[in-house]
Amino acid sequence: MNCIIGQSGGPTSVINSSFAGCVRAAIDRGFSRIYGSLNGIEGIIDGNIVEIDKEIFLSKGIEDKLKKRPSSILGSCRYKLDEDCESAIYKKLFDFFAANEINSFIYIGGNDSMDTVVKLNKYMQLNQIDWINVVGVPKTIDNDLCEMDHSPGYASAAKYIATTLRTIRSDIDIYDIKSATIVEIMGRNAGWLAASSLLSEIGSSKNIVDLIYLGEMNYSKEEILQEVKDALEKSNNLLIVVSEGFMDRDKYFDGNNAQIHDKGFNHPIISGVGQRLKDYIHDNLSIKTRAIEMNIVQRTNQLISKTDSDEAFELGYKALELSMEMTNVVPVIRRLSSNPYKVEYASASAGEIANKEKLIPKAWLESRKVLEEKIVEYASPLILGELEQDFSNGFVQFVELEDFIK
Amino acid sequence: MNCIIGQSGGPTSVINSSFAGCVRAAIDRGFSRIYGSLNGIEGIIDGNIVEIDKEIFLSKGIEDKLKKRPSSILGSCRYKLDEDCESAIYKKLFDFFAANEINSFIYIGGNDSMDTVVKLNKYMQLNQIDWINVVGVPKTIDNDLCEMDHSPGYASAAKYIATTLRTIRSDIDIYDIKSATIVEIMGRNAGWLAASSLLSEIGSSKNIVDLIYLGEMNYSKEEILQEVKDALEKSNNLLIVVSEGFMDRDKYFDGNNAQIHDKGFNHPIISGVGQRLKDYIHDNLSIKTRAIEMNIVQRTNQLISKTDSDEAFELGYKALELSMEMTNVVPVIRRLSSNPYKVEYASASAGEIANKEKLIPKAWLESRKVLEEKIVEYASPLILGELEQDFSNGFVQFVELEDFIK
Repeated sequence: MNCIIGQSGGPTSVINSSFAGCVRAAIDRGFSRIYGSLNGIEGIIDGNIVEIDKEIFLSKGIEDKLKKRPSSILGSCRYKLDEDCESAIYKKLFDFFAANEINSFIYIGGNDSMDTVVKLNKYMQLNQIDWINVVGVPKTIDNDLCEMDHSPGYASAAKYIATTLRTIRSDIDIYDIKSATIVEIMGRNAGWLAASSLLSEIGSSKNIVDLIYLGEMNYSKEEILQEVKDALEKSNNLLIVVSEGFMDRDKYFDGNNAQIHDKGFNHPIISGVGQRLKDYIHDNLSIKTRAIEMNIVQRTNQLISKTDSDEAFELGYKALELSMEMTNVVPVIRRLSSNPYKVEYASASAGEIANKEKLIPKAWLESRKVLEEKIVEYASPLILGELEQDFSNGFVQFVELEDFIK
Repeated sequence: MNCIIGQSGGPTSVINSSFAGCVRAAIDRGFSRIYGSLNGIEGIIDGNIVEIDKEIFLSKGIEDKLKKRPSSILGSCRYKLDEDCESAIYKKLFDFFAANEINSFIYIGGNDSMDTVVKLNKYMQLNQIDWINVVGVPKTIDNDLCEMDHSPGYASAAKYIATTLRTIRSDIDIYDIKSATIVEIMGRNAGWLAASSLLSEIGSSKNIVDLIYLGEMNYSKEEILQEVKDALEKSNNLLIVVSEGFMDRDKYFDGNNAQIHDKGFNHPIISGVGQRLKDYIHDNLSIKTRAIEMNIVQRTNQLISKTDSDEAFELGYKALELSMEMTNVVPVIRRLSSNPYKVEYASASAGEIANKEKLIPKAWLESRKVLEEKIVEYASPLILGELEQDFSNGFVQFVELEDFIK
């Protein structure tokens, strides 16, 4: 009984916690060999496979170190399998599984990666393959996965954002002039991560975020300018959060970036709206402006939510367990209550997650006040607790793959 | 015996540690009233003055909280005093000092702020004012101040950069493709902070920074392109560090260069050199490129070097003590040895710091190897030790001025 684990799509700060959960479950459940596929399924296709050294994993505290190690330690890919389940790649994958007596393939990823899980299962069904189960583990900082209360990775990014907005506010407040600082936050079409910037208001004696624009909102550029003008009447240094997926009605803020697409899934590469909004405010109001793109640091920051890490581990563990009995499923978190925060684990069909996205509910967008109340209720329990990072030579040190493979 | 403290110029993560040192020394040395001027000397000019509550400061652990609180808590300014020491502003300042029986004015800032210290002293000399001493405390993440081994604030920014480059490396390595990630780092004309990115190589099994370009270096854009090509022969995902003060010989990367325009609005791109270097590499090599501007987060990050914080406190403390006997001086750090790291405190004339800048020595730029050896020897002792931040509600909480003023 052997298994193989892969990671796919954009990284998160807790994607290796899910990986550690898979490995730990495989050891606990008596799997003989535990493989890792480098760069998602490309590793299997190209023959880049590693085997976990179970003894080292258990004896050297690798599990805890993996929980603190941001970004996909197995590497990633954006490989999209052909719709046609008859292509040679499928055969190559299943030949590999058969040759290595692999009964479980666990794929940790977002909605694109679940597309891979679904297609492999479709191939298995078509070819009556029943000796292997292919199961997904959810991850994404975007929090846009359906069928679950929230996705692992989101909370650690939100924790980093809440903390960083506090430090940005402390910086921009020092000058007694009119200014606007625009902070662009990731999340693709979904505003979950940008909205979590409002967590920084908790317990603060002053406003942290003055204005917020999410992809789910409908604005003209003139309406935004009016809001900025109004806000400047009340305070000096504005902090404006904009989701990378935000676009004004007339697409004035579109930088033609939609023409640039990523190679695998052909999604438009979206970033730059913050810079454009900055230029627009500067050109129209002649105040000091600055654009800050939170960039990839928000998805691989070492400031990790313990709640997020624990849940990511649990989902990895459960995925491996599920794979011993079922296929084409994904373990998910369902919320029982927010206060006190209680969840249960369930499983969903991979097909209900693949290629779909969950946006912020319309009812939450009624007003800034409602949005803040809703997101605080929703996300504040998720960012609680910190993992203590290991420092050496004055900066954070991370475990690497070479430390625990054969 | 009263004193007043101000902060000026760009913030750092330890500028409030110096402030705490001043306040603590003033309490220890029996000053009656300890004032803070909001937004540098503008506070005195505009009448925005606060008074520290000494009892609260001592009883509520404010000193330790200030050490963990990035960015100038008194606010800042970039106010430049007239060369003409006869202007009404000078009179206003000294009228305030006299009316409030202030014997010590401590100004925490960089080379511009030391210009203020020098001018106030010049006015004092011209007008035979001997009842007040005006003393500076050095600070800047740029590390470009003369007369001292290093400046407080630099090390914490370097610590953040070393840590963040490790996480950025963990992120960019996940895809098995050719790519170039350009990270633009602050420092004005001086490359100290960008060079400290090489600290991230300490103890790493793989290269973190592939190429580095500092303002002190002399390159044509074609030479850079060749270096990028050569590096891509050896590895997939390049991490290229560029100092914000870097410029190629022909100034192609200058933001006013008419050849490079924003795609959406046809504005000349006025963001950093990192973005333009990214565009240049992308246009010439057609690989995946990404520009990351570390931005203001590097100067107000909550990841604080204990060594830096302790030294900043000590300099603040000593400045207040110096102000009881001398004027027109700045306490500075001199290094006795790097291994073991030993320093002594001395004082320098403010005039030797004002308006001057210290660049990386030419001898350090001989080769990448030499630069790395030199900067590691120089900066690695400075980033040691961490201040444990206070978390509440899942993110970092900072002390505010309202918590300890009357």
